[in-house]
Amino acid sequence: MTSRGRVRTSSNSLDPNEDPVSGLERVFSNSNLEQVARQRRRQEEQLLFSRQLAESDRTDSHEALSARYESLNYEVSENRLYRDAEKKPSHQLTLWRISRNRWFVCFLIGVFTGLVAAFIDIMVHYSKDVKFSWILKYLISKCSEEQRGTTAGCMWTVMIAWIGYNCVLVTIAAVLVIFVAPIAGGSGIPQIKCYLNGIAIPEVRSALNHFISIVVKVVRLKTLVSKAIGVACSVGGGLCAGKEGPMIHSGAAVGAGVSQGKSYSLGIDFGLFKEFRNDRERRDFVSAGAAAGVAAAFGAPIGGVLFSLEEGASFWNQNLTWRMFFSAMISSFTVNLILSWFNGKSGWLSWTGLANFGVFENKDYNIWEIPLFLLIGVIGGCLGALFNYLNTRLTEFRKKYVSSKFGRLFECLLVAAISGFLAFLTIFAIDDCQPIGANPTATSTQINQMWCKKGEYSAVASLFFQNPEESVKSLFHSPINSFGVTTLIIFGIEYFFLTLWTFGISVPSGVFIPAILTGAAWGRLFGIFVERLFPSVTGIDPGKYALAGAAAQLGGVVRMTISLTAIIMEATKDITFGLPIMLVLMVTKWVGDMFNEGLYDSHIDLAEVPILGWNPPKMSRNILADRVMRKDVVALERRERVSRIVEILRSTLHHGFPVVDRIEESPYESLPDYGRLKGYILRSQLFKLLENRIFEEEESSSAVLPNDFYECQDDDDQMKSLADLGLTQYDESCWLDIEPYMHPHPHRVPLNTSLPFIFRLFRGLGLRYLFVVNDDNHLRGVITRKDVARFRERRRNHEYHVDELYISES
Amino acid sequence: MTSRGRVRTSSNSLDPNEDPVSGLERVFSNSNLEQVARQRRRQEEQLLFSRQLAESDRTDSHEALSARYESLNYEVSENRLYRDAEKKPSHQLTLWRISRNRWFVCFLIGVFTGLVAAFIDIMVHYSKDVKFSWILKYLISKCSEEQRGTTAGCMWTVMIAWIGYNCVLVTIAAVLVIFVAPIAGGSGIPQIKCYLNGIAIPEVRSALNHFISIVVKVVRLKTLVSKAIGVACSVGGGLCAGKEGPMIHSGAAVGAGVSQGKSYSLGIDFGLFKEFRNDRERRDFVSAGAAAGVAAAFGAPIGGVLFSLEEGASFWNQNLTWRMFFSAMISSFTVNLILSWFNGKSGWLSWTGLANFGVFENKDYNIWEIPLFLLIGVIGGCLGALFNYLNTRLTEFRKKYVSSKFGRLFECLLVAAISGFLAFLTIFAIDDCQPIGANPTATSTQINQMWCKKGEYSAVASLFFQNPEESVKSLFHSPINSFGVTTLIIFGIEYFFLTLWTFGISVPSGVFIPAILTGAAWGRLFGIFVERLFPSVTGIDPGKYALAGAAAQLGGVVRMTISLTAIIMEATKDITFGLPIMLVLMVTKWVGDMFNEGLYDSHIDLAEVPILGWNPPKMSRNILADRVMRKDVVALERRERVSRIVEILRSTLHHGFPVVDRIEESPYESLPDYGRLKGYILRSQLFKLLENRIFEEEESSSAVLPNDFYECQDDDDQMKSLADLGLTQYDESCWLDIEPYMHPHPHRVPLNTSLPFIFRLFRGLGLRYLFVVNDDNHLRGVITRKDVARFRERRRNHEYHVDELYISES
Repeated sequence: MTSRGRVRTSSNSLDPNEDPVSGLERVFSNSNLEQVARQRRRQEEQLLFSRQLAESDRTDSHEALSARYESLNYEVSENRLYRDAEKKPSHQLTLWRISRNRWFVCFLIGVFTGLVAAFIDIMVHYSKDVKFSWILKYLISKCSEEQRGTTAGCMWTVMIAWIGYNCVLVTIAAVLVIFVAPIAGGSGIPQIKCYLNGIAIPEVRSALNHFISIVVKVVRLKTLVSKAIGVACSVGGGLCAGKEGPMIHSGAAVGAGVSQGKSYSLGIDFGLFKEFRNDRERRDFVSAGAAAGVAAAFGAPIGGVLFSLEEGASFWNQNLTWRMFFSAMISSFTVNLILSWFNGKSGWLSWTGLANFGVFENKDYNIWEIPLFLLIGVIGGCLGALFNYLNTRLTEFRKKYVSSKFGRLFECLLVAAISGFLAFLTIFAIDDCQPIGANPTATSTQINQMWCKKGEYSAVASLFFQNPEESVKSLFHSPINSFGVTTLIIFGIEYFFLTLWTFGISVPSGVFIPAILTGAAWGRLFGIFVERLFPSVTGIDPGKYALAGAAAQLGGVVRMTISLTAIIMEATKDITFGLPIMLVLMVTKWVGDMFNEGLYDSHIDLAEVPILGWNPPKMSRNILADRVMRKDVVALERRERVSRIVEILRSTLHHGFPVVDRIEESPYESLPDYGRLKGYILRSQLFKLLENRIFEEEESSSAVLPNDFYECQDDDDQMKSLADLGLTQYDESCWLDIEPYMHPHPHRVPLNTSLPFIFRLFRGLGLRYLFVVNDDNHLRGVITRKDVARFRERRRNHEYHVDELYISES
Repeated sequence: MTSRGRVRTSSNSLDPNEDPVSGLERVFSNSNLEQVARQRRRQEEQLLFSRQLAESDRTDSHEALSARYESLNYEVSENRLYRDAEKKPSHQLTLWRISRNRWFVCFLIGVFTGLVAAFIDIMVHYSKDVKFSWILKYLISKCSEEQRGTTAGCMWTVMIAWIGYNCVLVTIAAVLVIFVAPIAGGSGIPQIKCYLNGIAIPEVRSALNHFISIVVKVVRLKTLVSKAIGVACSVGGGLCAGKEGPMIHSGAAVGAGVSQGKSYSLGIDFGLFKEFRNDRERRDFVSAGAAAGVAAAFGAPIGGVLFSLEEGASFWNQNLTWRMFFSAMISSFTVNLILSWFNGKSGWLSWTGLANFGVFENKDYNIWEIPLFLLIGVIGGCLGALFNYLNTRLTEFRKKYVSSKFGRLFECLLVAAISGFLAFLTIFAIDDCQPIGANPTATSTQINQMWCKKGEYSAVASLFFQNPEESVKSLFHSPINSFGVTTLIIFGIEYFFLTLWTFGISVPSGVFIPAILTGAAWGRLFGIFVERLFPSVTGIDPGKYALAGAAAQLGGVVRMTISLTAIIMEATKDITFGLPIMLVLMVTKWVGDMFNEGLYDSHIDLAEVPILGWNPPKMSRNILADRVMRKDVVALERRERVSRIVEILRSTLHHGFPVVDRIEESPYESLPDYGRLKGYILRSQLFKLLENRIFEEEESSSAVLPNDFYECQDDDDQMKSLADLGLTQYDESCWLDIEPYMHPHPHRVPLNTSLPFIFRLFRGLGLRYLFVVNDDNHLRGVITRKDVARFRERRRNHEYHVDELYISES
């Protein structure tokens, strides 16, 4: 063995001691190299065997993590070029420009998110106008004229027109999601949560070279447009769906889009903000966008910032938080401004948010009401857990049996039709007519005569046929006798199940407003019962209980606490109820967590995403790095022949490769014996080096340094395939000097490091990889996010266990 | 050289190759070992020389970090005992108990913080009662009777009684601070900020063995009692001081006290919550306590959580945040409950917080008012920066010339007397009499006739002679003509300078309310001018501008943004003004930051505390670990003779020591050549091992493992001195096996690691130490918080520079 004694059988094929396909990121490979496939199978068998051993003492573990998901890269590649950049005189200017541009981009994010929100709101408004003034009022009055009364026969016409209109809108929404941008479906919050947790969600990964499209599709222009139009259609189409969740997703998409200064979908590159084209900066802007989305949706800038923090960020950075706050503020401001124009009160800025729940007149509560609020919390926790359980089962069912595109479209139409039909049926079945004028808070759109006598209106219709936000307001602020008990029961149950069915179909739809509406219905019911139980006590306002119920139901479903409190407080523009709402949400979370996870977390688990929780799993102190790590690493030496690099790029999908000082055949193991860990180089950097032909003929000579691509994380560059580089036989015989371009001090831990320690490193620093070295600093393995995420804490029989999930290749 | 060839001249003295006094934590030593002192001088000369070299290209750097401050220890010592603990069947129960107790402790923190807050409030209330009903009303009415009119002659009596009463109260406050608990002085927020940043603030460090009292005095019972009584006295004594800052400190002290289940001051140990007796858990409870303090002070639970996060925590943990929120909620609830009883409306819970700013009637604002708010922000930024500049100069002056105890007491009395005198002088000088009844918001205590005619009251007196919180309410909510322009100008200027003088004297006093009051005065003035400029525009409410001014002044002084917005919004119980307040605070921070730092940060800098900012300093990419680290490490081998350990414990003050596999004489350097890094052991662990006599006669034999002290961070154990252990000559010749007790995988970085990378590790993980290893994993140096903190980003001539502070030994 010489000093450079790496075993290399030929310059054009891979070392048989190495397994290029399963290593750093362990992604499924389409490569058909026989040799590699054999190697891979052997590795998998080994792995399977060791896992079987580990599983022997466990009862059930049919859970999986999907290998499809990649980590985002938050680490700066601090190579020589990066360090030299600081020495240039122009660097001071760059620092100024970057910090100025960060604020500017946050301003733009706020403005655009506000515009999108206002656009959605105005679309929904017009769609409502069409439905109510045209279909409902016109047809009903026509019925009345023709038949001198409101008989069922004519009502069928109204119903069919209504349902038909709904179905058209829902079809638009569904087509956008199913055929244009699949990621735009649902509320988008689970996706944003994963993205902020550091996971790239792939859309397509059919072929090897399409691997590069594991770009963040979550936050694209196409997604944004589909989402905005789609959500306006699905809400306008009368589904039990809210526009708030999708608004948050839209905000995040705006954040990612604006900060990149270009659009993939349009193929336009404005050449702006090039310094922000990396995962690190993009994540910051996406959090700002999400905060702006919440701010626009609920008029809740503080709630928005807290949402971004509670659901996403792990590292609290004051500057970033401040920028998030700025975006949220600007977005809230923009929405207010536009809507104040739209509502003819231009410049009057107290109008806030899309979901404005109105202001409570009676703000007092007494200490004896606290136990009642706690009880509401318990009910909310149970109902929320039930909702999540049923919706998770439904989603599993859907995954299995409703997978074709037309099947999904059909389901959407079915939901739309049944939602409309049920509404009419209920109005027909329940006779809850209230005299017009008894409810001073009722607006003109709320008053639908329907089957009622003259001078009365149908309370049921006013619940079913309004925009959900208006219905929430009615439930919160109407006087005590505005809704009959039966109305509330039937409405609550129907809305609960319709929401259950709607959440998960292929349209953009949020769960916030439907959950609030369901909760407001049973909360109001609760208030009415309290009022009947204690008739002597004055000051019981069922609206207060409706608010508590709404908070409880929503909290039970999504299990957010602090951000949800802030959002509800800001949406009701009131601080006084803060305390009871917090109490309710806290109890709700405790109760709900006894049964299952929050809705978003359940959906994330179903998608087999390797998300990292807040704390390391309990009972994992004795799981050490050598069990967590993958041993089959693909490493490079500091100088490599171009042919080997090309071969590795071709046959692996890893995002980066460790650099060691020597690679030798191991006398003991089938894997090679790696030398000291010297650095880490990204796939994109290698690619760029090849593209710029930074390699030399002689092994000893060193290539000239290129100027400024110390950080080439821009995924655009990976779009080109290796073949496009046109490397000749001569090129491939050259040598590439990796040292100046690699990150020279990647994170490393010794072999005896415990899982909680590793977890805290990953979570606290947002790592993508962690190298494991032995006592002499020789590379022994690599740990990625998936390796950490596959250890999950579970509770069985009141005891904590750590389960090890397997990594599925699908 | 043998295989264990460490050079050791005698078994009872230290290796001359090592410098035990300047290493891991570099604390000043009182040891008088000649040898050590010589060694130390040499090291310092070397260091000085290298620093001089480094400084040669810098212009000014007379800044220092004090070596007095220690880091808190957040790292778990994951030794063999710790890992084995998980294998015991009782561990499941422990896990349950810990998570239950965490919630229980948070509940207690909330309750006790609420009680303390209510106690302070009630004390201040009675003190006010005494002053107003007794001194003011009684004496004035006596004057009126005797002299049939209000002449100056009689007023002198009133004034002297008034000032005398104030001076008595202030004396109590000052004596408590100066002679009982020095740390209770001031607002306490800088101390809390440092504590949450991970710094232990020492009180006494006179002798070597008192080093152990570098326990967290910040958060002691004695501190709490002194603070609570002191703040009631200083507020009651008419100083320009708020009770809100001290409330936050009190909350933090409650958090630390309750969670430890014992009291140092009382010498009681309840034996409770032993699992929380370490820095890691204590920090969490202190953040919860601080949040509870804000919640109690302003009725702002969300603001409290945001405050704890903005000022302290670096790692956002959802569970911790949730517990903080719970404490804040309970504390707010407790205050409400008690004050509702106290105010005779028992159970009516809408009463919130100590500083209740009242609810605005007119909540609208228009878009053309935005530029006015921005202007207010600019003014606030400038005034805040001026305040900070002057106060910092004053503090420096005070540090130099007012250092004796009686000097400080005299200053307090002087401030109290002058504050009272100025108030009377102003009332005498300004003739601002308003008819009683014109201001419907005025309460009876606000109406003081003073020199005014019958049926009128003195507006000036209503500003000066109320509780500051009441004055704030008057300025926010009184009708437009309630205060004359001259009144506001004189009041604003006087209050500005009195606050300036008061902040920093030796009484517990906050800056929140005084700054709000100053700002409200000039904000209201601004509003009056706006109203006069645009007389045609209706709806200009000077109260709105007073609110904006208050936010701007406070923001300019403390430079908080998001938490301050939340606090003001919650204290005014109103969301609508959120947007303008945010705008104002943002502009204020931008403008203020152009001139200097926030008040708390300035005071922290003056105290030479090694605090870590949010982001690594710019322009520091080329500062590598070998420049940051200290090379003079005191290391141990895995088996050491007891005598050497005793010697090291005796002659060094380090909190922990690295463990390496061998220590050899270096052929090249004066420092020894350390082997591979194997672990890290705490001073307290070594001490406990010695105390429990876990050592063996023979070098080869291994001692039995003790049961459960894997984590002995409890500072109590260090209270005993080494002499108390009574180690015999025979004991000292024994061997101690360190390996089972050391943390086996401490954080490490290679020599070429850059400062930003190191900074992110420290900040993201809350590290106390970081070892630097060479390419073969041999220990080469250690980096502590101070080593990182001494590199500071500065801006000169519009360019960023990194300055290197020196470590002062004072």
